[in-house]
Amino acid sequence: MKVFEQWESEIRGYCRVYPTVFKSASNARQVDESGRSYIDFFAGAGVLNFGHNNPFMKKALIDFIEADGVAHSLDTYTTAKRDFIEAFANSVLKPRNMNYKMQFMGPTGTNAVETALKLARKVTGRRTIIAFNHGFHGMTLGSLACTANQYFRNAAGVPLEYVRHEPFGCEKPCIGCQLGCGLESLEQLRAQFSDSSSGLEPPAAFLVEPIQAEGGINVASREWLHAVQKLAHDLGALLIFDDIQAGCGRTGQYFSFDGMDLEPDIITLAKGIGGFGTPLAMNLVKPEHDQHWQPGEHTGTFRGQGFSFVAGKVALSYFNDDALMNDVKLKGAKMQQHLEDLTERFGQGRFQVRGKGMLQGLDIADGALAKNIVNLCFERGLLLSACGTGGKVIKMIPPLTIPEADLLEGLTIFSGVLADALEAL
Amino acid sequence: MKVFEQWESEIRGYCRVYPTVFKSASNARQVDESGRSYIDFFAGAGVLNFGHNNPFMKKALIDFIEADGVAHSLDTYTTAKRDFIEAFANSVLKPRNMNYKMQFMGPTGTNAVETALKLARKVTGRRTIIAFNHGFHGMTLGSLACTANQYFRNAAGVPLEYVRHEPFGCEKPCIGCQLGCGLESLEQLRAQFSDSSSGLEPPAAFLVEPIQAEGGINVASREWLHAVQKLAHDLGALLIFDDIQAGCGRTGQYFSFDGMDLEPDIITLAKGIGGFGTPLAMNLVKPEHDQHWQPGEHTGTFRGQGFSFVAGKVALSYFNDDALMNDVKLKGAKMQQHLEDLTERFGQGRFQVRGKGMLQGLDIADGALAKNIVNLCFERGLLLSACGTGGKVIKMIPPLTIPEADLLEGLTIFSGVLADALEAL
Amino acid sequence: MKVFEQWESEIRGYCRVYPTVFKSASNARQVDESGRSYIDFFAGAGVLNFGHNNPFMKKALIDFIEADGVAHSLDTYTTAKRDFIEAFANSVLKPRNMNYKMQFMGPTGTNAVETALKLARKVTGRRTIIAFNHGFHGMTLGSLACTANQYFRNAAGVPLEYVRHEPFGCEKPCIGCQLGCGLESLEQLRAQFSDSSSGLEPPAAFLVEPIQAEGGINVASREWLHAVQKLAHDLGALLIFDDIQAGCGRTGQYFSFDGMDLEPDIITLAKGIGGFGTPLAMNLVKPEHDQHWQPGEHTGTFRGQGFSFVAGKVALSYFNDDALMNDVKLKGAKMQQHLEDLTERFGQGRFQVRGKGMLQGLDIADGALAKNIVNLCFERGLLLSACGTGGKVIKMIPPLTIPEADLLEGLTIFSGVLADALEAL
Amino acid sequence: MKVFEQWESEIRGYCRVYPTVFKSASNARQVDESGRSYIDFFAGAGVLNFGHNNPFMKKALIDFIEADGVAHSLDTYTTAKRDFIEAFANSVLKPRNMNYKMQFMGPTGTNAVETALKLARKVTGRRTIIAFNHGFHGMTLGSLACTANQYFRNAAGVPLEYVRHEPFGCEKPCIGCQLGCGLESLEQLRAQFSDSSSGLEPPAAFLVEPIQAEGGINVASREWLHAVQKLAHDLGALLIFDDIQAGCGRTGQYFSFDGMDLEPDIITLAKGIGGFGTPLAMNLVKPEHDQHWQPGEHTGTFRGQGFSFVAGKVALSYFNDDALMNDVKLKGAKMQQHLEDLTERFGQGRFQVRGKGMLQGLDIADGALAKNIVNLCFERGLLLSACGTGGKVIKMIPPLTIPEADLLEGLTIFSGVLADALEAL
Repeated sequence: MKVFEQWESEIRGYCRVYPTVFKSASNARQVDESGRSYIDFFAGAGVLNFGHNNPFMKKALIDFIEADGVAHSLDTYTTAKRDFIEAFANSVLKPRNMNYKMQFMGPTGTNAVETALKLARKVTGRRTIIAFNHGFHGMTLGSLACTANQYFRNAAGVPLEYVRHEPFGCEKPCIGCQLGCGLESLEQLRAQFSDSSSGLEPPAAFLVEPIQAEGGINVASREWLHAVQKLAHDLGALLIFDDIQAGCGRTGQYFSFDGMDLEPDIITLAKGIGGFGTPLAMNLVKPEHDQHWQPGEHTGTFRGQGFSFVAGKVALSYFNDDALMNDVKLKGAKMQQHLEDLTERFGQGRFQVRGKGMLQGLDIADGALAKNIVNLCFERGLLLSACGTGGKVIKMIPPLTIPEADLLEGLTIFSGVLADALEAL
Repeated sequence: MKVFEQWESEIRGYCRVYPTVFKSASNARQVDESGRSYIDFFAGAGVLNFGHNNPFMKKALIDFIEADGVAHSLDTYTTAKRDFIEAFANSVLKPRNMNYKMQFMGPTGTNAVETALKLARKVTGRRTIIAFNHGFHGMTLGSLACTANQYFRNAAGVPLEYVRHEPFGCEKPCIGCQLGCGLESLEQLRAQFSDSSSGLEPPAAFLVEPIQAEGGINVASREWLHAVQKLAHDLGALLIFDDIQAGCGRTGQYFSFDGMDLEPDIITLAKGIGGFGTPLAMNLVKPEHDQHWQPGEHTGTFRGQGFSFVAGKVALSYFNDDALMNDVKLKGAKMQQHLEDLTERFGQGRFQVRGKGMLQGLDIADGALAKNIVNLCFERGLLLSACGTGGKVIKMIPPLTIPEADLLEGLTIFSGVLADALEAL
Repeated sequence: MKVFEQWESEIRGYCRVYPTVFKSASNARQVDESGRSYIDFFAGAGVLNFGHNNPFMKKALIDFIEADGVAHSLDTYTTAKRDFIEAFANSVLKPRNMNYKMQFMGPTGTNAVETALKLARKVTGRRTIIAFNHGFHGMTLGSLACTANQYFRNAAGVPLEYVRHEPFGCEKPCIGCQLGCGLESLEQLRAQFSDSSSGLEPPAAFLVEPIQAEGGINVASREWLHAVQKLAHDLGALLIFDDIQAGCGRTGQYFSFDGMDLEPDIITLAKGIGGFGTPLAMNLVKPEHDQHWQPGEHTGTFRGQGFSFVAGKVALSYFNDDALMNDVKLKGAKMQQHLEDLTERFGQGRFQVRGKGMLQGLDIADGALAKNIVNLCFERGLLLSACGTGGKVIKMIPPLTIPEADLLEGLTIFSGVLADALEAL
Repeated sequence: MKVFEQWESEIRGYCRVYPTVFKSASNARQVDESGRSYIDFFAGAGVLNFGHNNPFMKKALIDFIEADGVAHSLDTYTTAKRDFIEAFANSVLKPRNMNYKMQFMGPTGTNAVETALKLARKVTGRRTIIAFNHGFHGMTLGSLACTANQYFRNAAGVPLEYVRHEPFGCEKPCIGCQLGCGLESLEQLRAQFSDSSSGLEPPAAFLVEPIQAEGGINVASREWLHAVQKLAHDLGALLIFDDIQAGCGRTGQYFSFDGMDLEPDIITLAKGIGGFGTPLAMNLVKPEHDQHWQPGEHTGTFRGQGFSFVAGKVALSYFNDDALMNDVKLKGAKMQQHLEDLTERFGQGRFQVRGKGMLQGLDIADGALAKNIVNLCFERGLLLSACGTGGKVIKMIPPLTIPEADLLEGLTIFSGVLADALEAL
């Protein structure tokens, strides 16, 4: 690890949580260079939905490389890109009767969000974005202005403006929360926007994660999401769903908001969409908004990623039938039940389980304790991380393809650590 | 192409310049699905310095995939990352006695620039960035504020502030240019910064491309770069070099500013550094500045790219001896000579050749003509693009590994097109 | 009136409401050049608390002029200024045990607010101001950002940032209001400020009019003002009271918030403080904050106004006993009763009376009707104006010194106009 | 003075320069309460062009008060306002064939500038203002952004954006100045604005003081002002002249730029225009721009000042013949000659005299020395002040009506102080 300490920036973070050097990885296991194997409940921050080194993707990638496929294409046309686009249209859009254009940009989530914000501002001729408490949308200045976490915001060095943060509409509010997560605060916002002397300017867009992951695994209620959609459209604003972490099958369905009868104007996707950990970001944009773009008006060198198209197409094949999604629902339910049991046993009324599918969190209301638990889990061979304000929520996002045995072993490690950590208090 | 027209966003751009579907690519050739082969003088916008599907990288990537290497790691430690870091230290930093920390972020150039700006603002506690006319630094709001092109800026939808644009110090000013590219405007800027009643606030950083690529192939003079460095340091500001397009060997040396005895505080790298078109971005940061970062203060999901580390390490091996760089110098000189000849034959005092190594541009002072030439070149099997204000500069950036025959064939196509296009006026 | 139409800017406004040329004025009467007399329920937008051409002030001003008093002094010391300062200390501050420094600036309300904002930002090192729906604080960019009315905001031409507008805590909420005026929204705001992942930055100040005049005669509840004060202080923010229109005796006591046991950090005063319509603005600043000022750091040419000090000193003499304030309470009660009676007779559940002392408003929930009423009143010899969102509130702010007969005559005219206007609908 | 020290804000400034309490004033003399008389070369920061307590104005004011004139009228019509408007049209506009609308606003210079900026932004739909090094335009956020002095800017507490500061075109550049005051930097700016890839956005206005007073008595050259006007108009931007300190006869003509054949779009006036030290501000606006205003879109309580109209009308009578202006030219020439003589005697190549009419400055290149001189002058009975970067320029702006004897006595005091101060170094 000396090489890193000598040459790598002090900003490095996760290596401090998992202080070892990983050498290989397969499905839900990572192995370090000493040969120790870890169960992965982290999945590269929600990227590796289909496991490390998914074998179908490996084959497709090797075939692609051997055939001299076009690895890097910007926004020229390639056969790999066409295959991906067709697969996405066939596997995701058409079955849902969704009519959206696909826009590719620099292959990171923050680029996707910046692009969505630009378009919303172009379409409406307005500036203000309504974002939400605990939201996470990225680190570049446009998306950082929408990100709620003060630790990240403070690093900007310039004011982060043109965004107003409002309470998020949790299905299950955190214990003791007074942020005002209900519909009431949304009605109040409507009243303010409807009053020309409120001081609020008409918004360009509402930017919402249907499920906040980094923010503490907060699941928005269906009712609230509909209210946001209605408010946005009544105000002539766009509704942008940031499904970067919760989309791509994570919740037991492709989009985290599937089945809710919602129709966002823009959906931002990244993380899981490239399939293999290969970077890709894509916005789905309603055609009537998309036509406001001029050619090349927003660019990005790496917006045509051959490997991501190839692996991403394999990923999409998981959505041609219900096998994986049914499995995710089952495994997700087991995770949730396990956490509920722990909450009952240890929670003393302060713990809370939140999540959907295989995006599950245990809010233990104590960031220092959570940090301790994460460290102990690592020592015992389980990778997971904390999220939420002060890091008080243990986040569990294993690969969707995790074998049942690994899942149970991981949960067992976690239970043991939790018990020990609480005892040691 | 119907699939694209039906499903892809209207924003797509290069596909309109090269209206075909590419299927495979090798070194400096791209082949479309009809089997037609094109010579590539574009190299994925300067990414593919080592050719499409570089055979050494192909092998390394396949080996890595087969061995279940860690493809996606955020900022955990991996063996692939360590190998890359060591190679970079050994092949680039140590031979130059450069003492810098390597910082990885979201793998796009704009993320690298945003990160550099954040750090400069943190280190200095100031806001203002001095950027330069014709500079290009990316599309997210922080870097877009530094980008000079109004077409891109207009898409922001919000004001782009905290940046002041100043004349760039061209070694060879454009014909008829009145921007004031000399040292004089820099001295005037110094005087303004030194006067507490000038209205200018002390700057956080000077952000400079030693060679502007998108901006029209403008090569900064050594004298001017030294003056910028001196001014920055005298003012307590950081000097940031954006070597994203001109670095990684493009100019016949690793950094575009090698041999100039300059010592920037931060160097942003992307494009070529991942080797294979696989995304990677990295900042080199002086240790005394790097220590201002707190762990995880600026993040990015795809900041640990296994493929890019693997292919990027192969790319670095080209810098262990002088073979490639000498070849680049020779081929670059041929390109330049060819363009100079054309200028003499056709230029009528209005053409100008600018560039360094295999980053060469022919300024033909007429954007419509340049567009026409690019289109004709495509029709005759040569891929290149236009840059600069109004697109009046033909940019030639073939892979550094282009075979001599392809290079000459490409230049010959270009000469023919130029002659025909001028005749048709 | 041709002279005005030919030479004066199109922006002129009140002259369109009162289309005549006034020649003289005395107490609560204005006389136009045709000799027609109007009862004044407008008092120069709340400036002329002590009547037009108050005889005591007239004498004092003439004496001052004849004695060659210093009419214009910037912030040099003058005897006139000292007399004013002593009078203010003796008549206002000492009886209330208030310990504040007096700061003079450019003699307009907007200058006072800008000055207060600067100081709050200096003291706290923060940027964000919490202002309130329907608030009015002035027209220059700093205070305009705090002003809620969109008509005024739209004229800025640049974004108005660093201010967040929140619901105002009305004692008596408007009929049908859904802005959320209660304590609940304040508690929600507290929760957001207390959560480091809410996206809200710590505020520099809360800027509150204890009674909003322009905003529609909205009287804050004592409970809410205390909650704001507590929240501000808990957050390390300053509490700024803008008492520019409601202060100086308007409500039957010197400050509109007298007797509420509140202790703002800064109080902005203007309008009535100069006594005669002569411009003056003054902030009262807690000494611990005042010491953050450096000499001359905020200036203004007309910050030393001899006439205003002289007339303003006379005005302060009205606060040495209870005579005027008792009279204001009595006359205010009569106004209120009169409006309540009209509400009962004509309101059909849609009218509402709001106000305190001689700052009374009748909310008739219909801006067009209110405009019509104001016009008819003018025709019948009564000057008043409309305020609030869409101008739906009839505002009555006669000079505090208005003779009972004029007051009753004015109210009678108003009743007649109201009846006629409603009948004509 | 204890009263002030106890009760007045620490921000008070000029009272520290002139530590006494003034009681009365007449023409160019101020008398303190101990009876000591001071010659006034400061004139209330350029306000009292017609002397303290000008006898004609005294009479007019007393008549007005006795006749119950309308002292405060907002923007209703009054006979006093009409008289002023007619006088301004007849005495100033018509003789110059100037076609402008008069706009009144809050009666301070900063309000006038804010109003001009708003209109320029409305007319053009653009944001950026070009202001100039050493410019002074006021203290509220909009005008402060245009003010160059860092001491004032630092007090803002928020970023001051949407303004770009450029070198000012001095007729006689300061000794050793490297700011680039010539036409060259303007041509460079034109080139940048003409290049769509310069990064500069089209400007809304150029805001220029034809003579910078606070900035150090810098007189713009006629040639440069014409170049600014041409550039502004070529770019579709407005030309705003801030003649607040240098206008109203100060330079020996009504406007400081009279006779230069210039046609600004907006002229801001304040300070001297109210005549007696009574506050007034007025913009002159080209009718084609003025029509962009909606009624009441920019307001200000004290925008109808009866006293200022009355005294201001008397002031305008000085411009009905050439007597005063000829006298100003003569006295100004004497002041200048006196300063030139001192420069020759004492300057050692470092002093410089700059100014026009009775706005004269001696640049002694040493702020500490200047401060010492100002203090000594006060001790010997002469009031003057320092300006420019670091306060290195002694500013002399006596009332235009100063008796010759007082002028000479003042100059003699100054010479003595200068000699003594230099000797003491």
